[in-house]
Amino acid sequence: RINGERLWDSLMEMAKIGPGVAGGNNRQTLTDADAEGRALFQSWCEDAGCTMGLDTMGNMFARREGTDPDALPVYVGSHLDTQPTGGKYDGVLGVLGGLELIRSLNDLNIKTRHPIVVTNWTNEEGTRFAPAMLSSGVFAGVHTQDWAYGRKDAEGKSFGDELTRIGWRGDEEVGARKMHAFFELHIEQGPILEAEKKDIGIVTHGQGLDWTQVTITGKDSHTGSTPMPMRRNAGLAMARVLEKVEEIALSHAPDAVGAAGHIDVYPNSRNVIPGKVVFTVDFRSPDKAVIEDMVTRMKAAAQDICDKMEMQVEFEKVGGFDPVAFDEGCVTAIRDAADRLGYSHRDIISGAGHDACWINQVAPTAMVMCPCVDGLSHNEAEEISPEWAAAGANVLFHAVVETAGI
Amino acid sequence: RINGERLWDSLMEMAKIGPGVAGGNNRQTLTDADAEGRALFQSWCEDAGCTMGLDTMGNMFARREGTDPDALPVYVGSHLDTQPTGGKYDGVLGVLGGLELIRSLNDLNIKTRHPIVVTNWTNEEGTRFAPAMLSSGVFAGVHTQDWAYGRKDAEGKSFGDELTRIGWRGDEEVGARKMHAFFELHIEQGPILEAEKKDIGIVTHGQGLDWTQVTITGKDSHTGSTPMPMRRNAGLAMARVLEKVEEIALSHAPDAVGAAGHIDVYPNSRNVIPGKVVFTVDFRSPDKAVIEDMVTRMKAAAQDICDKMEMQVEFEKVGGFDPVAFDEGCVTAIRDAADRLGYSHRDIISGAGHDACWINQVAPTAMVMCPCVDGLSHNEAEEISPEWAAAGANVLFHAVVETAGI
Ligand SMILES: NC(=O)NCCC(=O)O
Ligand SMILES: NC(=O)NCCC(=O)O
Repeated sequence: RINGERLWDSLMEMAKIGPGVAGGNNRQTLTDADAEGRALFQSWCEDAGCTMGLDTMGNMFARREGTDPDALPVYVGSHLDTQPTGGKYDGVLGVLGGLELIRSLNDLNIKTRHPIVVTNWTNEEGTRFAPAMLSSGVFAGVHTQDWAYGRKDAEGKSFGDELTRIGWRGDEEVGARKMHAFFELHIEQGPILEAEKKDIGIVTHGQGLDWTQVTITGKDSHTGSTPMPMRRNAGLAMARVLEKVEEIALSHAPDAVGAAGHIDVYPNSRNVIPGKVVFTVDFRSPDKAVIEDMVTRMKAAAQDICDKMEMQVEFEKVGGFDPVAFDEGCVTAIRDAADRLGYSHRDIISGAGHDACWINQVAPTAMVMCPCVDGLSHNEAEEISPEWAAAGANVLFHAVVETAGI
Repeated sequence: RINGERLWDSLMEMAKIGPGVAGGNNRQTLTDADAEGRALFQSWCEDAGCTMGLDTMGNMFARREGTDPDALPVYVGSHLDTQPTGGKYDGVLGVLGGLELIRSLNDLNIKTRHPIVVTNWTNEEGTRFAPAMLSSGVFAGVHTQDWAYGRKDAEGKSFGDELTRIGWRGDEEVGARKMHAFFELHIEQGPILEAEKKDIGIVTHGQGLDWTQVTITGKDSHTGSTPMPMRRNAGLAMARVLEKVEEIALSHAPDAVGAAGHIDVYPNSRNVIPGKVVFTVDFRSPDKAVIEDMVTRMKAAAQDICDKMEMQVEFEKVGGFDPVAFDEGCVTAIRDAADRLGYSHRDIISGAGHDACWINQVAPTAMVMCPCVDGLSHNEAEEISPEWAAAGANVLFHAVVETAGI
């Protein structure tokens, strides 16, 4: 078994970097706080006897050697970046759970046949630079590196420039590594495991996602002196589209969700009718056809709303991935580990996207989940118990060691 | 008659300071650009033989002496600050029209009995620091200076600190001046004069306004893994309130308008259900009871929407003024001037708020308006013709000189 106390201490230590305003974290990707978190992780990995690799996307790879020089490594990991008002566990548990696995192997003096590599994937959250899971996506060949480097944050800074600025752009070619398997431990970020009092979720599938950025162009004008019939109020058109997003997602309930988290209104002045709004609609479902249906209907509804209101609307796909079925062998390794350790468990579909969803395209992959309080995530109040964390890390440990061989 | 070409040249010269991105201006109050515009205006006033006064709210007063040492000055003026995506004429025409009046009196070697003072009121627009017409409001005793100094912009900077920073906080006690009368020239910012082909609007009334800031608190959570029934989507609640704002304003059409120009969504991340939205509803009408009815109904609707969606809502009044009836004597002086000069004209109700609306509480006040293209204002494409500007300035000139006596 892993050392649950040490794992928890490391989680709390990491959470000191990039503190939020309400007990959580704001350690967004490629910020100074991200650089600081990376340095701490590197020092811990080196203390545990690993050597650190760094690729051109800033992905970090801490390697513990195996006994068979010809064996491909087993990878574990997740991400250290957070939402602007994020929790202490989303991503971090998967990275530090991987580190704890190495530390426990050291304690127990166990040598595995395959090397084990703990990974920190750059920009999983996708808040600062859309899309989410950007660097695991480049690693898996889904996006080109040039395209990724050109992604811009709200201030117009590019991913490539910011990666260089914080000093974490490596030399190793992204995606050159071959993996024997990849395992990711993550908090559920939803309510199912806690409600059903299960220690462990065996992630068999991940739902797919579409991010469509909608730009509605009306006309800036005076809120006082512009007669109602002359107004081209882009904010009002957006309101009508948001109502449609809800209606469309509910029409597929419970197998779909939809919302807009990102909304920018221009020029955002109390006495100016919004002349432009830009917002991103997030639709998800485990069924690809459902996602396509929702996007198609949302676009048609937005077009219709804007036609009637005499405004322009444009759509840009800024993120997306298809629903995922994880590798049966890896899923079985996780289920067996949970059984062996005596944890209660159930199969689960991930509601969120994860680096594992992309890595699944280039290596046998699976995920293990632990519950989180009230299913709450992407919120500074995100909470888990040390016992839940330890259970997840124990299952990860057993599945990985089983796969890596002794 | 005033010199229309010189007036136009000065308008174009001022428009070079704080240029916008689309041909207009971004010279928001208490920015470096505002300071630069003030310095240019001061140098022009001094060249025209005026002495400059500056009060503790940064209001500027350029004085041309009269012949009667006991006569109170006649004031003219408006504001030099602009919206973030504002036009070249909103406010500026009223200040530089006043300056042109002084220059013309100098050219014609006319001495008036009452002194004439050209004023630039600080922060008329209210974009950076709510409410609008802040400093004329303090001058008129509507707000205290302490309260005004404490108003904060979106970055948390206070009005008082920023006024000091740009170096335009004067020593003169705000509101200490007594006025014989106040006249303000302004573009209409609406479509009526142009549609009816009138040169001049005689502003008999101004409609009233209410700015209610609405804060809806939902719960940040993951857009992917939070089931629809567990969501507390503050952005969706806002959308429903925005639809109500439209419905309520239309129920009083054509005697009322309503919209939200300011909308901030938190944490504004594509994969986080908005946990908080803050937006400001702008309702206006020439009828005070109508404004009160709209605000009451909007608050009730928002409360009902948020109750049903299990969210919190709070309201804060961040601006407002009652409908205004301008001084009959001053209005007549403007109408007589337009008649005398042979301009077509009509009486009009101002759709926008103006410094004149507050000064009307402490001095006999009236306004003259000129048309603007397509009724468009609070837009960089705001446009007027040199002829319209000259006509407005001529009427101002005649009404002021008539009132100041020769
Ligand atoms: N796990 C997680 O929150 N990932 C962010 C990508 C997503 O929006 O699902
Ligand atoms: N004239 C003008 O645009 N003033 C700003 C205050 C208002 O919103 O009416």
